[in-house]
Order: sequence, then structure tokens, then C-alpha cells
Amino acid sequence: MKSTIMDFDLTIHDIFWRIEKLYKEKEIVSRLKDNEIVRYTYLDFSKRVRKLANFLKKYEIKNNVVGSIAWNTHRHLELYFAVPMLGGVLHTINVRFHPTEMEYVINFAKDKIVFYDEEIPKSLEENTNATFISMNTIDNIVKEETEIGEFEDVNEKDGAIMCFTSGTTGHPKGVIYSHRSVFIHSLTLLSLIKENDIVMPVVPMFHISAWDVPFATMMTGSKLVLPGIKPSSADLANLIEKERVTLTVGAPTVWISFLDYLRNNKYDISSLRYIITGGAEPPKGMVKEFLEKYGVSVIHAWGMTETEAITTINTSKNIEEISKQGISLPSIEYTLITPDGKEGQWDGKTIGELIIRGSWVINEYYNDEKRTNESFVEINGKKWLKTGDLVVISKDGNIKIVDRTKDIIKSGGEWISSIDLENAIMSYEPVLEAVVIGVKDEKWGERPIAMVVLKDEYKNKIRGDDILNYLQSLNKFPKWWLPDKILFVDSIPKTSTGKLDKKVLRNITSK
Amino acid sequence: MKSTIMDFDLTIHDIFWRIEKLYKEKEIVSRLKDNEIVRYTYLDFSKRVRKLANFLKKYEIKNNVVGSIAWNTHRHLELYFAVPMLGGVLHTINVRFHPTEMEYVINFAKDKIVFYDEEIPKSLEENTNATFISMNTIDNIVKEETEIGEFEDVNEKDGAIMCFTSGTTGHPKGVIYSHRSVFIHSLTLLSLIKENDIVMPVVPMFHISAWDVPFATMMTGSKLVLPGIKPSSADLANLIEKERVTLTVGAPTVWISFLDYLRNNKYDISSLRYIITGGAEPPKGMVKEFLEKYGVSVIHAWGMTETEAITTINTSKNIEEISKQGISLPSIEYTLITPDGKEGQWDGKTIGELIIRGSWVINEYYNDEKRTNESFVEINGKKWLKTGDLVVISKDGNIKIVDRTKDIIKSGGEWISSIDLENAIMSYEPVLEAVVIGVKDEKWGERPIAMVVLKDEYKNKIRGDDILNYLQSLNKFPKWWLPDKILFVDSIPKTSTGKLDKKVLRNITSK
Repeated sequence: MKSTIMDFDLTIHDIFWRIEKLYKEKEIVSRLKDNEIVRYTYLDFSKRVRKLANFLKKYEIKNNVVGSIAWNTHRHLELYFAVPMLGGVLHTINVRFHPTEMEYVINFAKDKIVFYDEEIPKSLEENTNATFISMNTIDNIVKEETEIGEFEDVNEKDGAIMCFTSGTTGHPKGVIYSHRSVFIHSLTLLSLIKENDIVMPVVPMFHISAWDVPFATMMTGSKLVLPGIKPSSADLANLIEKERVTLTVGAPTVWISFLDYLRNNKYDISSLRYIITGGAEPPKGMVKEFLEKYGVSVIHAWGMTETEAITTINTSKNIEEISKQGISLPSIEYTLITPDGKEGQWDGKTIGELIIRGSWVINEYYNDEKRTNESFVEINGKKWLKTGDLVVISKDGNIKIVDRTKDIIKSGGEWISSIDLENAIMSYEPVLEAVVIGVKDEKWGERPIAMVVLKDEYKNKIRGDDILNYLQSLNKFPKWWLPDKILFVDSIPKTSTGKLDKKVLRNITSK
Repeated sequence: MKSTIMDFDLTIHDIFWRIEKLYKEKEIVSRLKDNEIVRYTYLDFSKRVRKLANFLKKYEIKNNVVGSIAWNTHRHLELYFAVPMLGGVLHTINVRFHPTEMEYVINFAKDKIVFYDEEIPKSLEENTNATFISMNTIDNIVKEETEIGEFEDVNEKDGAIMCFTSGTTGHPKGVIYSHRSVFIHSLTLLSLIKENDIVMPVVPMFHISAWDVPFATMMTGSKLVLPGIKPSSADLANLIEKERVTLTVGAPTVWISFLDYLRNNKYDISSLRYIITGGAEPPKGMVKEFLEKYGVSVIHAWGMTETEAITTINTSKNIEEISKQGISLPSIEYTLITPDGKEGQWDGKTIGELIIRGSWVINEYYNDEKRTNESFVEINGKKWLKTGDLVVISKDGNIKIVDRTKDIIKSGGEWISSIDLENAIMSYEPVLEAVVIGVKDEKWGERPIAMVVLKDEYKNKIRGDDILNYLQSLNKFPKWWLPDKILFVDSIPKTSTGKLDKKVLRNITSK
């Protein structure tokens, strides 16, 4: 039976309506090169977007792709609105991609224009058909252009933002978020972001649309602080202090370095209330230090490129529970499947792969039938995305990732969770970072080894045995879980999205 | 360009998924007759819904209408889920309707079954084709039935809840909210309702689905307190004290009586944080008393049957600003049109009719082409609902209702706002309630007169001149705005939805 409600598409246009009509005087702060700060109002922003759109329209953007190789700046933010509101898709390219990966994704997505922040590899212009425009040029464009009257009409299911996974195997895989998925996801984030918050997304706008935080922030009219090109811990501390940031968002690695920096440098970060972190489990030590030393609560969120970032949230106030991925935001459903392909029990014990469906979960990889076919499963007549995460789920739906399906260590027919070991090692005071991987072993199949970065003051003072003794003292692991080797290193390689790069490590250790 | 996001319908089924999977242990408290309290968990609730659905399925509910003449109880809540999840529409019938109005809407909507709380007029069974079932019967039904396995698949735009306007002219007009509109509206309410809130919707579930508050509360897993049949101020105070209610929702008239009751009766309402009120402007005195005496913040929301309740919200913390209707929730757009049919300026001065469009705004009245045609306007190529409210809108989009188009008093070619006068009179300490209406006047066209209810302790001690002197002392109104007559009355007639009934008053005074 039909309802009598009108058809009203959930689009970025409606967020823009709020920006232009309701939040004119709200502020955007953008850090550029040499710590230059650009500060303007939502109204100024909306005018620049209208002018930029007038310029872009000449390139026939509708149903086409515009690329960006860029950091978190106001110019990038302007593209976030101008391109999708013209019916185009903004393809955010990971600035940390290798030039050949950049070429690949630009050609694969058929970018017509690519905007870039800094110098780009020469090969890009030679090996792609895109027109390259420096972000700095936008300032001239908006000086010369008039404001566009009407943007293009779009359907809510049309693409808005495209990005590629960092790709641990083979070519990067592409996904395109829709106006609707951006809108609904942003709406659910308003349980975390309030109008009087001052929000600084550190998570990069070149990947997973900065977890949609810029959209959500502007949907509710909060002050937005964009930390610019390659922000250091000093830059972040400086912005938090000066702009009175209340809420910031980024991966644990960012905050581990940030805390380390604060130990030796004095800043007033008393305005900060919350850090939303995701991409990896936040170490308990970090969470504790933020809370006890600075009164900042860390919220652990989980998501992935294929689920447009923040998908589950741990709302527990108990630090002992911080490692859990929590429960889903509304319109996201999930369960787990055991190796026999059946739905597993929610009992906190049964390990299975997390599968997921909902408003901002992908249905396919862009133009990639083969890898699409490998990534979904049908259960109860419904299609679910296989996340590649091994989890247990409690009776109340609380998710705990045990490991990635690729990273779990299979030793003597049993599973060893690399994540559990890493977190245990990182809970040891002298340790800054740690990673555990499985190496081939003739007898057991695989055995765990650990690579550890010590805090400066502990370097050369701690031995492998100290760490093994510490692990034993926790009374948490069977003896055969303990790593066969502890390697001390100066740093741990990370992927282009800031995660520990176990693929590289496996290559190193297998040599 | 297509996105790669999956199709996932926003339906009540997904809210139910959360109830059943994530919030099993959360609590629902329901007050029945003789202050009997039913207390059960979300899991118990979900089981009863599955059993009730199994029963209802036999009546071939899909694409059909089930009626309810009922208050805020757990049984009514069970119907809120069971009927729409079977692909049916729950038609909530206003218990305050006259029997002939009830007959009319039951026949007009073609209700197959009607559930009722208390005795119903005999004529209903005679003059309609519906099967009538007492709500009490549900307890027996769920004892005998097994749990349904799968509910029916629905499209997100299918109807879920139907209700009728209280109809000041002609027959009541019907509207049908969709799964999608209920879902999106509930999502936007999560900026107000937190998981650890204890929520008591006093606004009746027999009208505008209790502003979708039951759905939003269960979407976020909060404890829900349902105040039952005809709750008195004593009942409300009792529930707030016993259940530690933190957030409650209802029309200003409810809270005026409630405050009056608290003046002579001691209750601990210290758990209460917020009251969301709407349907009429909350008097400043009431808001002040709640804040200063009880530490409770009153939030002024605006909406109407045609916009599924809470549509704009005043987020100002300044009591002087409380009379404003605020700005819209995301995916609701609005503007004003002046009598020449053009869009009016947002300058805080230009008066025009509020027009609105968005995710939970109607597109038509149910089977009523004539009145649908009168109620919409096309501006900028888009269709907008005419709200019948005269407003000014500030530069920042803040809405202030000046009057209903029907209630504004046209005196000597100028407009007098009945609402402004009412609020000024109600800000006078001795006054409990007041209403101002226009009466025909040969010379001026119309002139205002006021009807005033005094607080008990001031009865017979205050004269009309005292009120007129008070109004003059405010230095707010030109002399010709002041009412020609002040009538003291014991009570003011209200509509079936609790609003001052100016239609009745106009009839009385014209006699």
C-alpha cells in the first residue's frame, strides 16, 4: 500500500542547502603550506562552490569522473560538493599510492580532470588522458567565475565519491559511494557530532571521504578544522590549541605519535572531548593516557573502504572493553559465518568471518566482476559482504575482531590471533608499536614472530626475554601462542592508509 | 553514474533487527489500568510481536489496513511493529474523535480489524465492516501462537502508519507515513535521544505515531516508558520518579497542568533532563519554571500531521528565544511565500506562509484529490506543502510562527497576531491559560478578544483592566492590538489533539 509521503532524494544538495541557508556564519579553518591558515564562513564556502561548479560545468562533468590527489583543505572540500552536485563523481586518489598505482586508478576510473595539491609524478600526465589542474588554481577560478544558478538534478543512488582500496593483493579495487549512502551515513554520525562541536578530521580526505566526517560536520553546522598537507603531531596540537577543537578523528597510529609528541611538548588541548579512532584497534595504554592525562574519551569505531568508514561503534565507557568493535549504526546489519558457510552463534566464543549488509555497504567492486564474485555470500536469501575479518560476536551483538582472515596464524591446526598478541605486547610500558606475523614452519605450519619498536627511553634496555616474560605474566595465552622470535626495529612499515603493512613484513621475513 | 552501494531499504524491519539482536535486555515499562505496571525486555517484546504477527497474518494484512483506538501501552507498541512488518498499514485512530468521525475514518481507510483499549461506541460495530478486537485479547493471542519466521518483504516507500488530521473544517484528512519516512525521521531524532536515556512519550500514540518517538527510542535501544490510558499529572510524576525518566515528550498544555500539579505535590523528578514539546508555543513562564525549579530544559519543536511531527527544532539555550520554531532537521527544506505567491525574504520581518518539502512531508492527502490540490504550491520547479502557518524567517533560517493563516486577526487592514497576544497574556503571573480570537467588527473588520483562565489563587482577584495594564506595561504592542474584551473562564476548549480549539470559541462568541 503506497504511502502519501513525497519523493525526496537524499543528496549532497540537501546538505548544501543547509550550508547556504541555515549556517551562513559558521566557520571553516584550513591549514595550507607553511602553516598559512585560511579562515572563511560557510557562506563564503557556498559561493566558491557555486563558482567552481560553473567552471567545472564546461568540462561536462555530469556522469563523468573528476580526480583529486589532495589533503584535507578547504579546496578539496569545495570539490567534495561541486563535483557530486554537478552529477559527477569525485575520485579521491590516495596520495600515498605508487605512481604506477595512481596511473592505474586514473585510467581505470577514466578521470577527465585531476586536481592535485603538490607536485605530481611526471608520468601521470604522460600515461593518462586526464587534464591536471593544481588546487592553487581554484583561487583564480573563483575570482573569474560567476556563481552557478542551479546544480544538476541527481538520483539519490547516483555515485558521489569514488575511492580505491589500498590493495594488498593485485590492483586496487574501486568503490563508488552514492549521494544516499553519504547522506544516511552522515545522519547516523550526528549521534556523535553536535552543532557546537569544533571538528577536525585528521583521517585523510583522499581515502574513504574522510569517513564522511566533513559531510556530517557540515550537515549539523559545526565549525570544521582541516589540518592540511601532511600534518605533523605539532601541527595537530597547534590546531587543537588555537581553534579549540572538541572532536577529532583519525587512526590509532596518528594518536600514538601525537601522545608521544605531547610528552615533550606543552600544549593546551583542554578543549578536546572525544577522539573517534578506527582502522585498527586502539591500544589500551593510549586510551588510558588520553583519558587520565587529558580527560579525552577515545571512541573505537570500525569500518572499511567497502563499508564507507564508520559502521560499528563501541559505546562502552570501560577501557577494558575498548578493543571491541561494538555494534552497528542504524541500517547496518551483520552476522558471522563459520568455515562451513553457515551462520555462527552469537556467543562470544564461535569464531567466524564477519558478513555485513546495509545502507553504506558496497554491492560490487567497480568494473571488477571477478573480485566482486569472491566477496559476497548469500545467507537467508540476502546478499552480504564478506569483510575478511574473523570475529566473535557476543549475545548482545558486540563484535570483537580476532584477526584478519589473511593474518591469523595457523599453528599446529589451531588459530593464534596476531591482533591479541600485538595488543598484549603494546600494553607493555616500554613498547611503542608492535606487529605479529606468522612465518612458515615445517613442523607447525606457521609460527608467530613479533617485531617491536621500543620507546626512545627504553631503547637497548629491553630484551626479547623481557617481553616474553611479560606476556607470560599476563596469564592470558597458552605457551604455544608466544612468539618464537622478538625482533627489535626502528619503525614498522605502514600501508598507504596508515595500517601496519603485514604484506611487506612477510616478504622481509621470508627472505 | 551508478554507485556501487547495495540497495538496502530503510524499513521498520531494520529497527526490529536491532531490537531483537542488539538490545535484548533493554526494558519497556507500560502502565495499564489501575496503575498496573507491565515490565518486560526488548527480547520479550520481539517474541510477542512475532506471535502477534503470526495471528494477524491469517487476516491477510498485507496491503490492508488495521486500525487501533488506543493509548500508549506495550500492546499498542506491538501493533506498531507487527502490522507494518506484515506489509500492512496501522491506522491509529484518535480516541478523542466523535463516534461519527471514528466511523468515517474506519470506513474511509477500509480498516479490516480495529484493536481498542476500552469500551468503544456501539455504533462502530454496526456502521463499519471492521472486526473489533480488544487490546486485552493480545495477551491470549500470544499465549496460543507460535513465533512467525519471516515477516513480509516491503518496499521502503510502502505505507506503515496512517492517521487523520483533527479536521477543523470538513471530514478529517488522511495521511500515510512510509517505512522510509519513519526511519529517516527517527534517525534525525537520535541527535536528541541517547542510548542511556529513559524516554517517556506522553504525546499520544493514537496521533502522528507519537511523533515517531517510540521508533527512535527503540532504534537506539533506550528504556521506553509508556504512560498508558489517560495519564494524569499524578501518573506522569509517579512514572518519572519511579522509572527515573530522563526525557519526555508532549504538548505544552500537558506540562502546564503538570507544573501546576507539582506545586502542591512533592515528587522527585531530578532524573529528568529534557522535555521536547510541540503542537503549540511553550509559554516562557513554563519553560523558566522547569529550568529554574527543576533543572529541566524544554526544547521547542514544530511539526504537523502533514509533516510527521518533529520537523524543526529550536536549539537555542536562551529562554527569550523559546517561542521560535527553530531550523529544520536534515532532509527538510522550507521557505515562505508572500500573498502574491512569490518567495519572501528571510529577513525576520517579511510575513508569509511557511512552505515545506522533505523526507517526511506528505505529497497528498489519502484519496482526497480536492483538498490535495488546495494544499501544495510549485516554486522553483519543486512541489511544496503549504503549512497554513504564517511565519517570519530570520537570515539564519530561524522560523517564527506569527499565526495560523486562519487565526490571524485582520483589523483595519493590518494584521494582529493572536499568538503574540496569547503569549504576552500568559507571561502575566496570575494567568494559567489564555486564548485570543478575532470577532467580527463593523468598523475594523475584526477585533481581538481574549479568554483567560486564572490560577486558582488569583480567581476573582484579577480584573480585565489588570491584564490590559500589564500588556501596555510590556511596551510591545501598539494600542490598537490590545483586546477589546477580556473574558474570564474556567477552562478553554481543546481539540482532540490538545490544542486550543479556536473554532469552538469562534462559534461561542459569535452567538
